[in-house]
Amino acid sequence: MSAAKKMVNSLEKSSWIRQMFEEGARRKKIYGAENVFDFSLGNPNLEPPAKFKEKLWEMVQNPRPMQHGYMPNAGLPSTREAVANYLKAEYSLEFTMNDILMTCGAGGALNVIFKAILDPGDKVIFPAPYFVEYGFYVDNHGGVPSPVQTDGEFLLDLNKIEDAIDENTKAILINSPNNPTGRVYPEAQIKALGDILRQKSKRLGRTIYLISDEPYRKLVYDNIKVPSIFSAYENSIVATSFSKDLSIPGERIGYIAVNPNIDSKDVLVATLVLANRILGFVNAPALMQWIVPELLTESVDVNIYKRKRNVLAKALLEFGYELSIPEGAFYLFPKCPIPDDVQFVRLLQEENILVVPGSGFGGPGYFRIAYCVDDRTIEGSLPGFKKVIEKIRS
Amino acid sequence: MSAAKKMVNSLEKSSWIRQMFEEGARRKKIYGAENVFDFSLGNPNLEPPAKFKEKLWEMVQNPRPMQHGYMPNAGLPSTREAVANYLKAEYSLEFTMNDILMTCGAGGALNVIFKAILDPGDKVIFPAPYFVEYGFYVDNHGGVPSPVQTDGEFLLDLNKIEDAIDENTKAILINSPNNPTGRVYPEAQIKALGDILRQKSKRLGRTIYLISDEPYRKLVYDNIKVPSIFSAYENSIVATSFSKDLSIPGERIGYIAVNPNIDSKDVLVATLVLANRILGFVNAPALMQWIVPELLTESVDVNIYKRKRNVLAKALLEFGYELSIPEGAFYLFPKCPIPDDVQFVRLLQEENILVVPGSGFGGPGYFRIAYCVDDRTIEGSLPGFKKVIEKIRS
Repeated sequence: MSAAKKMVNSLEKSSWIRQMFEEGARRKKIYGAENVFDFSLGNPNLEPPAKFKEKLWEMVQNPRPMQHGYMPNAGLPSTREAVANYLKAEYSLEFTMNDILMTCGAGGALNVIFKAILDPGDKVIFPAPYFVEYGFYVDNHGGVPSPVQTDGEFLLDLNKIEDAIDENTKAILINSPNNPTGRVYPEAQIKALGDILRQKSKRLGRTIYLISDEPYRKLVYDNIKVPSIFSAYENSIVATSFSKDLSIPGERIGYIAVNPNIDSKDVLVATLVLANRILGFVNAPALMQWIVPELLTESVDVNIYKRKRNVLAKALLEFGYELSIPEGAFYLFPKCPIPDDVQFVRLLQEENILVVPGSGFGGPGYFRIAYCVDDRTIEGSLPGFKKVIEKIRS
Repeated sequence: MSAAKKMVNSLEKSSWIRQMFEEGARRKKIYGAENVFDFSLGNPNLEPPAKFKEKLWEMVQNPRPMQHGYMPNAGLPSTREAVANYLKAEYSLEFTMNDILMTCGAGGALNVIFKAILDPGDKVIFPAPYFVEYGFYVDNHGGVPSPVQTDGEFLLDLNKIEDAIDENTKAILINSPNNPTGRVYPEAQIKALGDILRQKSKRLGRTIYLISDEPYRKLVYDNIKVPSIFSAYENSIVATSFSKDLSIPGERIGYIAVNPNIDSKDVLVATLVLANRILGFVNAPALMQWIVPELLTESVDVNIYKRKRNVLAKALLEFGYELSIPEGAFYLFPKCPIPDDVQFVRLLQEENILVVPGSGFGGPGYFRIAYCVDDRTIEGSLPGFKKVIEKIRS
């Protein structure tokens, strides 16, 4: 064996997820892909907005000199400026291009942030359930992932977070709208979190960052607005992408925005730029950097996701599943009717329904449905969802 | 200060390079960009081949469903297969798609490889002078960068490499054609290196990988061919990109190819795929993955670079500079006429010529000229190059 021990260990620990995916693939082969209802991946099924295609077409038709060449590690200045102006209008804060770094999606953004800020052993606190990659992202750069349970509604448990902060805590990472729960943390919670961090930073004599991973910011329903961390706390950093709102996750384009009033900004931004370079991202993909300035206010039609959410949630509630209707993203996170989520997911699999056990997200006893799929998949799955819970209840 | 100490330290250590770039920018402002001869960056000035634009245009005109969506972490199967077939024809080895992982350029590829194979404290040996990022790439993942001097001609010093290998050595990383020297290691050296690694692996009871970073493979002149590491050694891995041969470095598309006969291949490839995912690359940019299969045999016209090399090298030799004519890439690495390369680079700067001191590449006493610039820049720089050496000699 010659691969790194930790990596081999990670592979072994996640082998049950792989087995599950393999079982799904096997079923698609046997029954035909159209007869397997795959809710396991957050790969949005909507096509990008028409304007994305237009702008892409324009760039390809009328290429600028060296448009596919290296860009500054921080990104194309005109793109950074456009993002800064967008944020300025959105949050009434004086963003400039110096607060913006273009990245290889939000996943790239988070790795860049942790590379830039973590000293060995620094703790990063995040609420559970959490996006399955957070533990890796923190550990990659010598940090210690420190999940803290949310409350019964999957909202922040501020007391638990406050208790978890100690002299090794470097950052709190939140994700709202949340993957896997779909919850949006209300403004009062974000404000209170800012207050806690301000006090704790002062008491502990170290900057504690509030990092918000926001790729689903525009995917919210029922007229709610995702509260901003920028107005709640100075030492705040947003990592985000165009993956979900423009439905282009494969193109790996996103950005980091640091609060214009963040501590020691020049050094922090310089380390972020250095991290983007030395982690091998070098620059966010060039062609996408050229076109996103004109797409900052665009989005896929969120009403389509809303309808999918409503159809599926209504049916599941009728069948007897317990779930709260989430405000955003494209996930449902219902409670399993039996305690063991892995076993329950296997029961659904027997009905050719593929979902992910909550254990994978630090939320055992629940399961995640990614409803960014076509209507046929949703409709086709309903008899199976019904059958499984009826069998359990009978 | 809240950024990571090591990162701040790296910034401070490289501040002289930043100062140099800032001085260059200042001069462009004062004298006009057209009067400053900038050879400091390896950002190719040639436009991509016509076929690249054609294929890109076709993809944008006739989009496939979800063509901008997430791809498997290892890459689009049809793209991996096309690369495997290309390599099979090129090296007469039985590559399959399972040996190929699409990456975010060669920089991404190397980070993925080191993340996958390095246990804490593992040494990675590479010949000096070296690409300026290698130290970071190894250190990012807990490895220990171990540069070993080349011989007087910048070819491998096999004795020194053999002596440097110990029980902590995990890999040897070579880069041929080389940045910054432009040298191509001859086949006899690659074969001998393979033999050394085979013996040492056996004696030390551990796999030692030979990793070749080959983005300049197609940029060779005078009818030479870059020897393959695959036939010289089983435990070999290539990291490469389309950045230089298609002149699209900003698009971040490349791949990893593992030797089909490498030890414990399944586990190794699984850890590479995991690394690509958890480092936040997730997948190589989607649009580029769709088009590269039809561009595998394409390249910019290398005769253009050859002409630039010849014009510049001939003039510098005439002026009295010492340099060997490199076989590939688009760099010259002449000896400085005074011992201190940083001071010499400042003298050139006074003539509005921007180059990089060899110290930045572990090659003090030399300087790097990136000649992937337009002819006007080369011609315009000649009087300055002449003036500086004449002044020193007088």
